[in-house]
Amino acid sequence: MTQRPSGRLPDEMRNVSIVKDFTCHAEGSVLISVGNTKVICTASISEGVPHFLRGQGQGWITAEYGMLPRSTGSRMNREAARGKQTGRTVEIQRLIGRSLRAGVDMKALGENTITIDCDVIQADGGTRTASITGGCVALNIALEAWVAKGKLKSNPLVRWITAISAGVYQGTPVLDLDYPEDSEADTDMNVIMTDEGGFIEIQGTAEGKPFTGEHLNSLLALAQKGCEELLAIQKA
Amino acid sequence: MTQRPSGRLPDEMRNVSIVKDFTCHAEGSVLISVGNTKVICTASISEGVPHFLRGQGQGWITAEYGMLPRSTGSRMNREAARGKQTGRTVEIQRLIGRSLRAGVDMKALGENTITIDCDVIQADGGTRTASITGGCVALNIALEAWVAKGKLKSNPLVRWITAISAGVYQGTPVLDLDYPEDSEADTDMNVIMTDEGGFIEIQGTAEGKPFTGEHLNSLLALAQKGCEELLAIQKA
Amino acid sequence: MTQRPSGRLPDEMRNVSIVKDFTCHAEGSVLISVGNTKVICTASISEGVPHFLRGQGQGWITAEYGMLPRSTGSRMNREAARGKQTGRTVEIQRLIGRSLRAGVDMKALGENTITIDCDVIQADGGTRTASITGGCVALNIALEAWVAKGKLKSNPLVRWITAISAGVYQGTPVLDLDYPEDSEADTDMNVIMTDEGGFIEIQGTAEGKPFTGEHLNSLLALAQKGCEELLAIQKA
Amino acid sequence: MTQRPSGRLPDEMRNVSIVKDFTCHAEGSVLISVGNTKVICTASISEGVPHFLRGQGQGWITAEYGMLPRSTGSRMNREAARGKQTGRTVEIQRLIGRSLRAGVDMKALGENTITIDCDVIQADGGTRTASITGGCVALNIALEAWVAKGKLKSNPLVRWITAISAGVYQGTPVLDLDYPEDSEADTDMNVIMTDEGGFIEIQGTAEGKPFTGEHLNSLLALAQKGCEELLAIQKA
Amino acid sequence: MTQRPSGRLPDEMRNVSIVKDFTCHAEGSVLISVGNTKVICTASISEGVPHFLRGQGQGWITAEYGMLPRSTGSRMNREAARGKQTGRTVEIQRLIGRSLRAGVDMKALGENTITIDCDVIQADGGTRTASITGGCVALNIALEAWVAKGKLKSNPLVRWITAISAGVYQGTPVLDLDYPEDSEADTDMNVIMTDEGGFIEIQGTAEGKPFTGEHLNSLLALAQKGCEELLAIQKA
Amino acid sequence: MTQRPSGRLPDEMRNVSIVKDFTCHAEGSVLISVGNTKVICTASISEGVPHFLRGQGQGWITAEYGMLPRSTGSRMNREAARGKQTGRTVEIQRLIGRSLRAGVDMKALGENTITIDCDVIQADGGTRTASITGGCVALNIALEAWVAKGKLKSNPLVRWITAISAGVYQGTPVLDLDYPEDSEADTDMNVIMTDEGGFIEIQGTAEGKPFTGEHLNSLLALAQKGCEELLAIQKA
Repeated sequence: MTQRPSGRLPDEMRNVSIVKDFTCHAEGSVLISVGNTKVICTASISEGVPHFLRGQGQGWITAEYGMLPRSTGSRMNREAARGKQTGRTVEIQRLIGRSLRAGVDMKALGENTITIDCDVIQADGGTRTASITGGCVALNIALEAWVAKGKLKSNPLVRWITAISAGVYQGTPVLDLDYPEDSEADTDMNVIMTDEGGFIEIQGTAEGKPFTGEHLNSLLALAQKGCEELLAIQKA
Repeated sequence: MTQRPSGRLPDEMRNVSIVKDFTCHAEGSVLISVGNTKVICTASISEGVPHFLRGQGQGWITAEYGMLPRSTGSRMNREAARGKQTGRTVEIQRLIGRSLRAGVDMKALGENTITIDCDVIQADGGTRTASITGGCVALNIALEAWVAKGKLKSNPLVRWITAISAGVYQGTPVLDLDYPEDSEADTDMNVIMTDEGGFIEIQGTAEGKPFTGEHLNSLLALAQKGCEELLAIQKA
Repeated sequence: MTQRPSGRLPDEMRNVSIVKDFTCHAEGSVLISVGNTKVICTASISEGVPHFLRGQGQGWITAEYGMLPRSTGSRMNREAARGKQTGRTVEIQRLIGRSLRAGVDMKALGENTITIDCDVIQADGGTRTASITGGCVALNIALEAWVAKGKLKSNPLVRWITAISAGVYQGTPVLDLDYPEDSEADTDMNVIMTDEGGFIEIQGTAEGKPFTGEHLNSLLALAQKGCEELLAIQKA
Repeated sequence: MTQRPSGRLPDEMRNVSIVKDFTCHAEGSVLISVGNTKVICTASISEGVPHFLRGQGQGWITAEYGMLPRSTGSRMNREAARGKQTGRTVEIQRLIGRSLRAGVDMKALGENTITIDCDVIQADGGTRTASITGGCVALNIALEAWVAKGKLKSNPLVRWITAISAGVYQGTPVLDLDYPEDSEADTDMNVIMTDEGGFIEIQGTAEGKPFTGEHLNSLLALAQKGCEELLAIQKA
Repeated sequence: MTQRPSGRLPDEMRNVSIVKDFTCHAEGSVLISVGNTKVICTASISEGVPHFLRGQGQGWITAEYGMLPRSTGSRMNREAARGKQTGRTVEIQRLIGRSLRAGVDMKALGENTITIDCDVIQADGGTRTASITGGCVALNIALEAWVAKGKLKSNPLVRWITAISAGVYQGTPVLDLDYPEDSEADTDMNVIMTDEGGFIEIQGTAEGKPFTGEHLNSLLALAQKGCEELLAIQKA
Repeated sequence: MTQRPSGRLPDEMRNVSIVKDFTCHAEGSVLISVGNTKVICTASISEGVPHFLRGQGQGWITAEYGMLPRSTGSRMNREAARGKQTGRTVEIQRLIGRSLRAGVDMKALGENTITIDCDVIQADGGTRTASITGGCVALNIALEAWVAKGKLKSNPLVRWITAISAGVYQGTPVLDLDYPEDSEADTDMNVIMTDEGGFIEIQGTAEGKPFTGEHLNSLLALAQKGCEELLAIQKA
């Protein structure tokens, strides 16, 4: 059997911890650690909605994503300094926003906007899925805070959202790829699920050779197992 | 049973045509029409590779995507004038490039770069999958041209790439969403496959409520049927 | 006598065709072909005017111009990707807008804005003049459509606008330069005229040595002949 | 007869003065005043040429143009602060560069680059023509300086370049439009000539109604007279 | 004793002159010369205030700074052309704005905005302090003009602002560094003072080795002397 | 006597802690906390120097600064998303770079470049001084790491750099302003010192009324006391 670089079993996730209230200003804030991947997720609520939604009696959730320049093995250029977000960043923040919008009743949110900021302070693979899983917790904290303040009647979070990666590493389907696995995997899949087991998004990519329907099913099964474990940690 | 706006059967694709040599300057050029969606795809080959690949004896394929401002029902801002590509554009061109790279043996391509330009002149849903399907044909024409010129020993295309969408429209899984369906679908899936039936990329997104494993399987089956039909048209 | 690369006589234009309704979404849309130069021109009407004109009871016409990256012999950078339009693009789209504004009664247009998009899909010299000639037809179609819808009482187009180039090629004044001529011509002149024979804009440039008043007069005479021929095609 | 706002005769230019060595660092520097229009023109020479000319044994001349934010009646935005030059600026600096390149023997210049900076400190119409006329003097000073230093064998300026505007103001052709005339003129023409009376560039624009061949001839005659007067001042 | 390159005594300023009404359009305009450093300073008043101040019954003063590309020994890139102001420019214009705001009673100014433009046409060290000293005079002229027009009841300038540099050059504290001194000085200090002798801003920077409290005191004493002399010139 | 919002004595700093090796990838990394202000400082070393220093046998140190969007009480726009760093950011990162360069022997560093990244994850006043103080520790860790690897013969840090603010709050000079004090202080001063008690930079700004020489002296004395305390913590 394939030996994973970390020594983990194929269906074994890394240690996950979520520290609540990691910073003090945001309505919701957590530090999520998935092994060596560490992301600060904050949820900021403000009144009003973007122009295209005004007067429709519903809210909006959007996300932004960034990596500190030295969150990675070699220093990346600072996006603010080069004046442009990379294509990868844009792709990821669209995914985070889309995923978390699926968890909230926009009518119940009312004409309010929530911005989820996911800032990676240390990267070791799986930053986008960690951002979604952590972002959902920050989102819930923020919504609870607004309920407590009387600004919302009840919490409009209708389902929890969790996300995890799986991939085919040296021929074996494995759960929760870290960076050494991710950079060599034949297939990489990100799966975003709800607490009721439904799918919000599936993105599977062949990095080298095409993958089969069989591999797809194995990866989905691993991801389902992972999302269940994450859900327990989120709710704790 | 659900009535599709176009009157098509659930597993019925729109008419697809591919006009070769649509413009005269590019090494490869086609106009692909999928119903009312029309995309000009060109493949441009140049010697040399980007900095990060130099000296490794392999080639590179990249893609760019754009929509003419009035390819859509209401005029969009011109990206060149606003000085920035939208997140959607960036996401799509990364997908096209990734998909087509999977079809080519980069060592056999040698230190040459191919740029696939996909410009939508009329949009009615499915522009990204039409771009991939048409782009693969343009790519093949360009590679054949370089073989004919003696610049390549043999055509490094190792597999054909086709792409199609499927989605859950009013509860029914249907193939090849047009714009009226796409804007209302509960689930939208883009599937990119090879001529041997392997998967290159799967992107399934719940637009409203989560989707089930059962829906996923139906959509994959529809997409497989669609890709087979596209393959026959590509090769014709 | 100088032999033109195309074998045309000095006062002979290339074949010109204008395909109406080339795309389906815009209020007005044509494909103009002038020999191998092909430009999609669309006219989009929207209610309202830019800030600087509000409340003055008059309309506005503006133009944007672009070239597909591989409309030319060697691939150009995509302006949307580099985040900036070139000086040449800016200069051309200002010329198109200025020229077409001269054809319309802005008071009769009312507080509406028309955007003319000229996208070159294949280039062989004379793209700016083809854009003006084709753009005027698209503009007229769009205005007629708004008259038909009852949004305008009558068509505010007060004069047709046509444009053509002429130049001194190997010492001989010739009409309608194609790319091989344009890149070698000593003098290049773009002439924009009305259907009553008035001038809207004249731009004559010495590429190498200065030109004389005599040359100027020959080029104007050629251009007048060309504009008359174009006018017949526009109105057909 | 039409009364010009300034009381000038139709063929009367404003007072023109050219102060040499207005600033101390540039190889060539002048302040040109045409009535109330004042432009600082500097010519900077540096060794080497842009990438596209390397190894061809010839030089390059380019121009940049700017207006101080309060050179005009109401303050304009600073282009450096908004991060973008306006279309008008781009159009003007391309015209200046093109015009002055026509005055120099590029082979004799050798692989050196000259940048002409034209900065308007006070504007009252005709800034682009003043920039060309003044720029040519700055260019000549710089070339003489390099000859004096032994960096050039002889001065590669082969002809002097002068530029002036003319226009149809309230039905009368007049020379050298100032701002009050320019903002009301029916037709505006910029003419760039050589010291031997050849044309380098003619740009005539109908601001409202089309202009006739007769008007064109009158304006050219006025401009020729103006350029002769400017030439005498340049050479003084 | 250290010989200054200019032969000045350690506490000797360069010749300073301020030409009022240097350009004609701005409400206030001066040319300040401090030796070979020459800066055009204009003050433009407009009604209204930026968004963040609306409705608070007070005014705003802001500044912008630029250098002509060839104001320096070797040509700098034009900031408008590269699409970005340098960090140095941003830092300087923030300093100018902050300093001049300290001279005006914002309540008495009412909801009006003044923009101070400082454009360096020739540089020889000390451009930022010359900009502040000259900018204050332009500001005062503009305010007097609005009082004269009845748009302000009385001049809201409550104190004059002057600025000068001092530094440690070859071990000796000297006043008003010119470029040859500035590029070699161990310590460089900019001091902004009021006409009553209070400090508005002190910025002292060790360029090489740290400076002592003793040096600091010497530099402040020199600057105080300089500011007194400048004040006399400003008021003249 | 004035009561500080935090209850601190006038000369009392907030609690300061410096956590070494806060993230794992950078050559040097710390989390510095000054009360509620928390900044991640990393030092990244790479071989080579910027263009302007090549071949001179010396190194370079530069700094970049950023704030997480929700490090503050209300969410700020993400600089990477708006495509531009604010003037404040630019000003601060120039200060950090300048200050830390003063601590290192550039010849001894050799042709290597160090980038100090200071990312504020929580802000409560004093982020720029915390960045300098923490950045110096990260810098030293990185230099020691390169000495340990044999890439440098000895540590080129020749002096420790510390930074602290002081200000006049409600008439009383106080040390280490937190946000509530900073936003109301009459005078704000940042002082950067060496471990031998020399000054590297002094920036004192009157926010409202001018400050006196007496205030200046009091603030410098407070800052000196603060820097001594910080030095002890840095070295621990």
